[in-house]
Amino acid sequence: MDAWRTGIVAADAETIRIRGYEITALMRGASFADVLFLLHRGRLPQPGESALLNAILVSAADHGPGAPSCAAARLVASGNRESLSAAVAAGILAIGNEHGGAGSLAMEMIAQAAALAAREHLSLAQAAERAVAAARADGRRLPGLGHRVHRNDPRTAVLFDMAREHGVAAAGVEFVTALQAAAARLIKPLPINIDGALAAVLYDLGFPPAAGKLIFIAARAAGLTAEVAEEHAREKPMRIHIPVDYDGPPPRSL
Amino acid sequence: MDAWRTGIVAADAETIRIRGYEITALMRGASFADVLFLLHRGRLPQPGESALLNAILVSAADHGPGAPSCAAARLVASGNRESLSAAVAAGILAIGNEHGGAGSLAMEMIAQAAALAAREHLSLAQAAERAVAAARADGRRLPGLGHRVHRNDPRTAVLFDMAREHGVAAAGVEFVTALQAAAARLIKPLPINIDGALAAVLYDLGFPPAAGKLIFIAARAAGLTAEVAEEHAREKPMRIHIPVDYDGPPPRSL
Amino acid sequence: MDAWRTGIVAADAETIRIRGYEITALMRGASFADVLFLLHRGRLPQPGESALLNAILVSAADHGPGAPSCAAARLVASGNRESLSAAVAAGILAIGNEHGGAGSLAMEMIAQAAALAAREHLSLAQAAERAVAAARADGRRLPGLGHRVHRNDPRTAVLFDMAREHGVAAAGVEFVTALQAAAARLIKPLPINIDGALAAVLYDLGFPPAAGKLIFIAARAAGLTAEVAEEHAREKPMRIHIPVDYDGPPPRSL
Amino acid sequence: MDAWRTGIVAADAETIRIRGYEITALMRGASFADVLFLLHRGRLPQPGESALLNAILVSAADHGPGAPSCAAARLVASGNRESLSAAVAAGILAIGNEHGGAGSLAMEMIAQAAALAAREHLSLAQAAERAVAAARADGRRLPGLGHRVHRNDPRTAVLFDMAREHGVAAAGVEFVTALQAAAARLIKPLPINIDGALAAVLYDLGFPPAAGKLIFIAARAAGLTAEVAEEHAREKPMRIHIPVDYDGPPPRSL
Repeated sequence: MDAWRTGIVAADAETIRIRGYEITALMRGASFADVLFLLHRGRLPQPGESALLNAILVSAADHGPGAPSCAAARLVASGNRESLSAAVAAGILAIGNEHGGAGSLAMEMIAQAAALAAREHLSLAQAAERAVAAARADGRRLPGLGHRVHRNDPRTAVLFDMAREHGVAAAGVEFVTALQAAAARLIKPLPINIDGALAAVLYDLGFPPAAGKLIFIAARAAGLTAEVAEEHAREKPMRIHIPVDYDGPPPRSL
Repeated sequence: MDAWRTGIVAADAETIRIRGYEITALMRGASFADVLFLLHRGRLPQPGESALLNAILVSAADHGPGAPSCAAARLVASGNRESLSAAVAAGILAIGNEHGGAGSLAMEMIAQAAALAAREHLSLAQAAERAVAAARADGRRLPGLGHRVHRNDPRTAVLFDMAREHGVAAAGVEFVTALQAAAARLIKPLPINIDGALAAVLYDLGFPPAAGKLIFIAARAAGLTAEVAEEHAREKPMRIHIPVDYDGPPPRSL
Repeated sequence: MDAWRTGIVAADAETIRIRGYEITALMRGASFADVLFLLHRGRLPQPGESALLNAILVSAADHGPGAPSCAAARLVASGNRESLSAAVAAGILAIGNEHGGAGSLAMEMIAQAAALAAREHLSLAQAAERAVAAARADGRRLPGLGHRVHRNDPRTAVLFDMAREHGVAAAGVEFVTALQAAAARLIKPLPINIDGALAAVLYDLGFPPAAGKLIFIAARAAGLTAEVAEEHAREKPMRIHIPVDYDGPPPRSL
Repeated sequence: MDAWRTGIVAADAETIRIRGYEITALMRGASFADVLFLLHRGRLPQPGESALLNAILVSAADHGPGAPSCAAARLVASGNRESLSAAVAAGILAIGNEHGGAGSLAMEMIAQAAALAAREHLSLAQAAERAVAAARADGRRLPGLGHRVHRNDPRTAVLFDMAREHGVAAAGVEFVTALQAAAARLIKPLPINIDGALAAVLYDLGFPPAAGKLIFIAARAAGLTAEVAEEHAREKPMRIHIPVDYDGPPPRSL
């Protein structure tokens, strides 16, 4: 088999290097957010970049056992007591476009809008207005806006404030802010949800759209480990009983 | 269905709190390692505790595509291009007692040795000697010692030095160090591997044995996101060809 | 990399053979239960063996959305709409010693009892009595007996009757039947659950203990695909709301 | 929490019914393929339908350890020895549009072509010609045609012959056959691969497009259990060594 090529880690009997840096130096001198930035972007972050990626990780780490990711992890922990990794993995599997992963869709929208603005000499506010009009015409939801629970997600303002304070805010934050304003005008007032906020800042940090999902996954994995640990520590196996209503065919014979 | 109880996260329409702390305050004032400590241990760490948990997370974040976790993630990314979470989850599934999870076994051994020492008024060095003798008698491998690749894992010394510098080192570090010495005397010289080092320090940080696996999972999830991102960015789907030798029954008819 | 050896499938540009048989001949001349038997046992089954393995597969195929496996699959389908395989995989992850996998434990118990009976010239009824006495002394549950829902699992009698009718019943069925009788005498009346019934028959079909889990997994995978299909067809994304009670620390500041 | 509604299984303390049929009657009187048909389509199949679905299941059950699904399962079995379900689940996660799941894409194409033919009074051959022309114009691959390994997949002819013999063949088989002919004329000769064959027959059996993936998953789960069993039985943990070429940044200091 051909060797698998990689530009991320080089390991031999004596050393392990991530993107060229000795892992021992990183253990002493870099935060976990720094290393995640390094793994994905190939360089260590500036302090402001590190603060923002750290805030994103904290913001997405956990949301309680009611979130599909946490609930799936706990269900698996309930039936399969012998594998902690099975439970955490099930939680990660629940992350998709509908839960935790809409940041990727929002980042694609930002990238397309930025390209459109550059091509047609539009402002980002004009590009946002077009995106809202197009979504309204097609009856599509705009990724990054709206939330089932949080009328005004407290995490968004903090992320955007931090992005501005640290000089990280750029086209991503500007576009998503303009998108919300245009949606309020053309559709209805909608909060910027955590997916949209995270997408705006990750875009401004130079991450590609896939990172909208991947960074959320890296963050939520931490929370899932705690949810699974609590399930093992506090609950008996098989304690979860889902109520079911059968509405299929009546009893019949072969 | 009964409500699921939890002591980790409380979320409503206006706020999200982790162990009582507003998530927005944590986003500004806590590192990801702090929050992981908080999620698992119910309190924020002291600076030395935070430095150690951060170092553990960095040490386990990635080890290159040859590790089973990273290889499994890349294989899944190769066949299933549409789900990033499927690929990361597959990587996590490869974590078990044989790969990345032996820290849990080592933590159980430490806990048993500490209990034995307390019960029988032994020193930890004496308890370590007994553990080595018992493993030798049964032909069992000692969790935390030995490695396929790293003759002298560079991460161990750094973790133990940091644990001593920050005043975190206690029974865990002492026992695993004594275990290595006893093994060298009674069996053969073996390095303390990353599982053993991580187990010693997590024990001294007050984590239960399950954390040996769970903290490794939280760390490796980060590396897996980068491995999957690189697979998508650099490689075509279905590029992996495993060579196979068939040695089963010859052709035959029904 | 060294080639991976296998005795199961040989495939080249022109043919695919399973255990030596052309897959095209199997497609026409073998049932899925036959092929599963062939994959695991290396030969095609006798008609009675095939009928029994088929009955086991049918018995375990689905148990409704309340079972942890089905519930986990639906939760993941609810959050991650883009990957059908993620949802089915999450359902499989919920299968463990506590749910669907106790057949492996029961098969190990049967194998140990059979070895004990041979070694000490005991009848299987005597070996069963010893197993019950030991479990009672240790306060352990006996794998294969008892059920949360089914006071008298209807599947057990059918499997055992079929095993006797087809001449498949041997030490496995005899031992588990004796185990139930001894438990009724020494502990309390307990039904033989599906795990115990499946274990007895799989043992008599010559499968090793791991098959207790693996055959259940192969069967349940079928049901999971239907549960996931129904979730996609009938339900909106993110429709599942788990009620949560927070009982952790009160609000506090950093 | 609201009860989860389902039309598939009804279970209580005394009985389990699938789509209204007692599971005990199905265990005696139905094949596994029958039950899978029943689970998905809500009725038992005619004998010809059953034979076809059985042949599809057999055709997709296993393809040797080199397939990404089987390789991922073995890698996970190599690192995580304690969870059989983790290994099988990882194998299922590798199934996607690129591996094993293209049947869903092919079924969508068939459904669209059939709708187009009805709407514009075209023959299926004309609709196939349009589909090929459109794919050629866009540089897209046609789902269901072409294969990396099998120049002439032996499974396709058997499935199509059986579909005709049993009177199951209809628009699906007709369209895919016409698609191949049109591709040979307009692009180049390409075999109908197993995804395309399976898609054609599942369409003619009345399954929706999602079944292209789901039925493959149900089939491959069986093969994965055998691959995992062989890995456990024949191989040591951590035996897999992936060769790696690092081409990232050279060593550097923080």
